[in-house]
Amino acid sequence: MSGEFELIDWIRDRSSSSGAVPLGIGDDAALVRGTGRDVLVTTDLLMEGTHFDLSTTSPRDVGRKCLAVNLSDIAAMAGRPLAAFVSIALPRTGGRALAEELYAGMWPLAQEFETAIAGGDTNSWDGPLVVNVCVVGEPTGSGPITRTGAEAGDWLLVTGALGGSLQGRHLRFTPRVREAMALHDAATLHAMLDLSDGIASDIRHLLQSDRLGCLIEAAAVPIHNDVDPGLDAAERVRRALCDGEDFELLLAVSPEDGQRLLNSPPPGVVLSRIGEVTADGRRVLRTADGVEQPLMSGGWEHAVS
Amino acid sequence: MSGEFELIDWIRDRSSSSGAVPLGIGDDAALVRGTGRDVLVTTDLLMEGTHFDLSTTSPRDVGRKCLAVNLSDIAAMAGRPLAAFVSIALPRTGGRALAEELYAGMWPLAQEFETAIAGGDTNSWDGPLVVNVCVVGEPTGSGPITRTGAEAGDWLLVTGALGGSLQGRHLRFTPRVREAMALHDAATLHAMLDLSDGIASDIRHLLQSDRLGCLIEAAAVPIHNDVDPGLDAAERVRRALCDGEDFELLLAVSPEDGQRLLNSPPPGVVLSRIGEVTADGRRVLRTADGVEQPLMSGGWEHAVS
Repeated sequence: MSGEFELIDWIRDRSSSSGAVPLGIGDDAALVRGTGRDVLVTTDLLMEGTHFDLSTTSPRDVGRKCLAVNLSDIAAMAGRPLAAFVSIALPRTGGRALAEELYAGMWPLAQEFETAIAGGDTNSWDGPLVVNVCVVGEPTGSGPITRTGAEAGDWLLVTGALGGSLQGRHLRFTPRVREAMALHDAATLHAMLDLSDGIASDIRHLLQSDRLGCLIEAAAVPIHNDVDPGLDAAERVRRALCDGEDFELLLAVSPEDGQRLLNSPPPGVVLSRIGEVTADGRRVLRTADGVEQPLMSGGWEHAVS
Repeated sequence: MSGEFELIDWIRDRSSSSGAVPLGIGDDAALVRGTGRDVLVTTDLLMEGTHFDLSTTSPRDVGRKCLAVNLSDIAAMAGRPLAAFVSIALPRTGGRALAEELYAGMWPLAQEFETAIAGGDTNSWDGPLVVNVCVVGEPTGSGPITRTGAEAGDWLLVTGALGGSLQGRHLRFTPRVREAMALHDAATLHAMLDLSDGIASDIRHLLQSDRLGCLIEAAAVPIHNDVDPGLDAAERVRRALCDGEDFELLLAVSPEDGQRLLNSPPPGVVLSRIGEVTADGRRVLRTADGVEQPLMSGGWEHAVS
């Protein structure tokens, strides 16, 4: 098989249609139909050698992850995904087979979340694999939940368990789309985000005012089984807070809503209270024996020279 | 300056807000507000060494073009652009300065077309520059104009003049957003697309039924001044039909609408009738001296092995 157009036909023939996409692959632009006037848009660019390594990760897992991280961003706004747009730069040799595997990783996830793969751009070059996925969704309920809106006294809740994701879970995680919508339906969410760099780093996005700080209780942090049980307790907490790529939800709610959610979480949603938002601008970790120390800033940032 | 977050702040501070984007750069996803339930989405990935060469093209021109090609896709649907999402993979050295120049090329064009730069993803790597732009727009008038819908007997009209774009015009072209909306307002457009590979190649997108063909009149093809006047007449037509990167509009309308548009084109819209849609499935070029020959298939296609 050869040719960009043939590949595009192949993709189109296998991309299930969706009521949200009256017009998909094959025109100048796709038409996405929401239920209201607002859409959510997020985009992520993943590059071979930087975000994934094809010598250790299958192209199918890469494809799945490229879509999953975007669905996670829509979840973080309590949105419902509608359509995905996939741009790929393929190496010249073996590009077609690579593309087929990437899509084979994306389709089941797209189907699970009723997200149409509605367009994109397919290219070949002499460089490594590059994939950009853009997902369009729509707000649910009273509207999108932003990163701003946390208040002093709010409880900090987190879904699932944290740490050790790079052992392999980062390729297989389930975007918390359903959980986010259920939480949005069940309570007034003040602020929410999905954890990509780890709480220790991502928490700052919820504390954008200098006035706001946080107190995280080490003993309350849900540690994933993927974190080596042979490590000492403090190191296990550090891994849970700093490893990143959890793609769980971190949210701030009033203590009343927080207590109510913990007492009767929405079906299928695993929730932990890991601490609270404070008014003193400091980010504090309280250890199991009650010692307060600065929350390690952890996480990572791309260097841009 | 260093760091991805600092660069993102720099971009955000300079990206003008827009009523269509209540929530832009800085959250998990952007919120785009249209006037109806439908949005148009298009995306293009441009790679250094494949789509542009930084040794001969300034990063500012590259940035401008990455946005312009997407605006042109929205124009091809007679849509109004609302917001753009820019993903970039920057080389590690000099990436920050490169990013600033890319954005300096995008902002004036975004402003001209009232398009907010509302989000994206910024990364560094050891590879060449890669830019993905995704533009969200909304349909105008009676809805989007697709590539399908041309009928036998329709006139084929084209905006502007064609050929020689790679002399430099491909970096400076004006996306035909205003022209498309004016035409959509003035007539019933049966089908429309923007010319990226040249009419000889792109015409097939308007003739998707085997039944449909076209007759192009060589003498009627509007040849741009950028095509070398020293070439013979046939070669000049070939250049106009095959060079590509014109980003003009090709549209199919009824003869009645076609005549009316030619008699009184919308203000600022330059229109030519280059031929018609036929019922015999053949693609024919009629030369100035009346000889009919197959329309050269021209254009190009990325090889995908």
